Amino acid sequence: MAVGQNEFPNMPEVPGITLGTACAGIKQTVKDDVVLIAMDGQSTCAAVFTRNSFCAAPVHVAKANMAYQPRWLLINSGNANAGTGKQGMADALKSCADVAEVVGGQANQVLPFSTGVIGQPLPVAKITAALPAAFIQLNAANWDKAARAIMTTDTFPKGVSKFITLDGQPITINGIAKGAGMIQPDMATMLAFIATDAKIAQPLLQSCLAVAVERSFNRITVDGDTSTNDACVLMASGRTSAPEITASSEHYQVFSDAIVIVCKQLAEAIIRDGEGATKLMRIVVAQAQSDEEAVRVGKTIAHSPLVKTAFFASDPNWGRILAAVGRAGIENMVLEDVQLFLDDVCIVRNGGCADDYTEAAGQRVMKREEITITVKLGQGQAVQEVLTCDFSYDYVRINAEYRT
Amino acid sequence: MAVGQNEFPNMPEVPGITLGTACAGIKQTVKDDVVLIAMDGQSTCAAVFTRNSFCAAPVHVAKANMAYQPRWLLINSGNANAGTGKQGMADALKSCADVAEVVGGQANQVLPFSTGVIGQPLPVAKITAALPAAFIQLNAANWDKAARAIMTTDTFPKGVSKFITLDGQPITINGIAKGAGMIQPDMATMLAFIATDAKIAQPLLQSCLAVAVERSFNRITVDGDTSTNDACVLMASGRTSAPEITASSEHYQVFSDAIVIVCKQLAEAIIRDGEGATKLMRIVVAQAQSDEEAVRVGKTIAHSPLVKTAFFASDPNWGRILAAVGRAGIENMVLEDVQLFLDDVCIVRNGGCADDYTEAAGQRVMKREEITITVKLGQGQAVQEVLTCDFSYDYVRINAEYRT
Repeated sequence: MAVGQNEFPNMPEVPGITLGTACAGIKQTVKDDVVLIAMDGQSTCAAVFTRNSFCAAPVHVAKANMAYQPRWLLINSGNANAGTGKQGMADALKSCADVAEVVGGQANQVLPFSTGVIGQPLPVAKITAALPAAFIQLNAANWDKAARAIMTTDTFPKGVSKFITLDGQPITINGIAKGAGMIQPDMATMLAFIATDAKIAQPLLQSCLAVAVERSFNRITVDGDTSTNDACVLMASGRTSAPEITASSEHYQVFSDAIVIVCKQLAEAIIRDGEGATKLMRIVVAQAQSDEEAVRVGKTIAHSPLVKTAFFASDPNWGRILAAVGRAGIENMVLEDVQLFLDDVCIVRNGGCADDYTEAAGQRVMKREEITITVKLGQGQAVQEVLTCDFSYDYVRINAEYRT
Repeated sequence: MAVGQNEFPNMPEVPGITLGTACAGIKQTVKDDVVLIAMDGQSTCAAVFTRNSFCAAPVHVAKANMAYQPRWLLINSGNANAGTGKQGMADALKSCADVAEVVGGQANQVLPFSTGVIGQPLPVAKITAALPAAFIQLNAANWDKAARAIMTTDTFPKGVSKFITLDGQPITINGIAKGAGMIQPDMATMLAFIATDAKIAQPLLQSCLAVAVERSFNRITVDGDTSTNDACVLMASGRTSAPEITASSEHYQVFSDAIVIVCKQLAEAIIRDGEGATKLMRIVVAQAQSDEEAVRVGKTIAHSPLVKTAFFASDPNWGRILAAVGRAGIENMVLEDVQLFLDDVCIVRNGGCADDYTEAAGQRVMKREEITITVKLGQGQAVQEVLTCDFSYDYVRINAEYRT
């Protein structure tokens, strides 16, 4: 099940970036499960990785290889190569060496990414065998195929494309993603790969990505779990005829905003595909003393199983939302100053149920598939948004089903 | 559904403490829903309340009245008097005044406690009408009746009794509790009432209770929600012939330990009655650098919906447990130093699945109704335990059912 319409967009080529897929038969033999992405020689590459202390072997390798001007990404679905000890590290390194051999490059310029079952050895031989096929397929038009090949239990491929112009010259930004946090049954990982033909130095690209991830992927939650394999990569080929983006140029904000939008749309697609999700909930926390506090309140609401089950039941259960706000650890909050809205319906005011609230009005909103919960804290000016989905029988079913 | 045998114990009288119950018909008319507890004049009384910023009206009143040597407790089930604004405060104060009138005492010596539906006005008139009946019933033998009267959606009454002797003189400690965190559908509250005939000054009694709550009720979680109404009260009538307990006396530790045990047993009973619970999970975090870090890791595991659904499915899914440990925010953790056990079966060692682990051994443990998860962090000496239960279809069903 997924919330809303989720059609894969037409994705144009990004000059300088090519993608090839193949079926290695890692966990199944029906669909492609290996993706090779190649960047032009002058490309810059930024990446953000999971903050989980026990990150998977490929994350260790990819982090280390960020120092050597990455040229290739190798992604496999079906196996996360996580919790695999020393063998896992050897396997991740071997897969990079194999890519280097096929493409005629250096192993430390390959970033490996794995997603799938935790704790099982990565079948490197299968991946190696599939690399030549993926290499031959390398083509700038393969975004759709790549988006499908990185899926694990995703129910739809996730892609976003965006044009901007700088001094009248077009720049393309494409992004694909998979996963919904770490909510897959034993499937680790949210992965996102974004590419653009913009010309931008690596440090600036990295700070662009850091800002965008903070405002998108770090603002979504399905169940509060952080995967061992989460990663988001931003590649810039520099092949545009638009001018180089520098920190001082007026173009920087335009580009940065576009990256934020692409990341936000990918993040939203992940939540729409949250396991068992029947509703998309936008939690807007306003009148907070700081962004940090606004996010903290938003996430406390978003993580509450009581709130999430109530939304599954279309129950405008404001007591649960208010209780979550109250335990978010914000100093000096005054219940009487807090207002709570479901879409445009005010449900809490003056410390209790709003005088003009009617159960019928609440029910009307709750029947919708996408609902905005607005909490006004009455403390300051900061506003932040967190996205989540509801908690259904299907969430339990999917996650309780045995791994095999 | 509840985990394990949960028979109500024979509870002896606690000299100086009497209890009376009555049916006010607050939400139903089948069982008693009002409890009055009276303490002897020389009693001392300690209390710990919810840390939720939006605590309910009765919590505000009870906190304030702690300054006036409490003599009576008034508890009602069926309505939490939470999210009820100014009227809620007026209602809580009115109920105390009504108790004072019936017992011939002072309103500020009454501590009110409410548990039940959030956001609906407290039917004070019904409670007032039932007070004379509860007053007439006041009797030291009524622990069983009181334990039943404070139940909301609890499936069994929760009581613990313990004897200790100081210089050969007996001291009795009785405790009753209700609720499982804030997991009831719209039912706020965990409440616990403990009484003893020990002789002990209020400040010392308060620190005793604070220690015990920290090691018991603050170490359990069903779904991470903190109620607006949580409270735990410890009353000491001083009617024993045992010597007074002072901070410097050797008896203090004996008494303090006994209070910890009573609180732990009540806390465990609450988890056994966790909504939809089919398994009791004891999470022991050892070799931590500090108690705080051990608790943080334990709670991260205990709150993970992925871990909880896996246990519901009897799936020895160590990847999810490891991922939870990894995101607990502990500095300098080394995956290779971490060991994970399900009861006595080692499942993770040297950064991956233990060599001698077999799926059959894991399955054998997971079929049990009570399972100890031991995580050895390989960092220090601290050990702490957190209790939780699994996450089942019934959790979603119970919490998704509409309020009416």
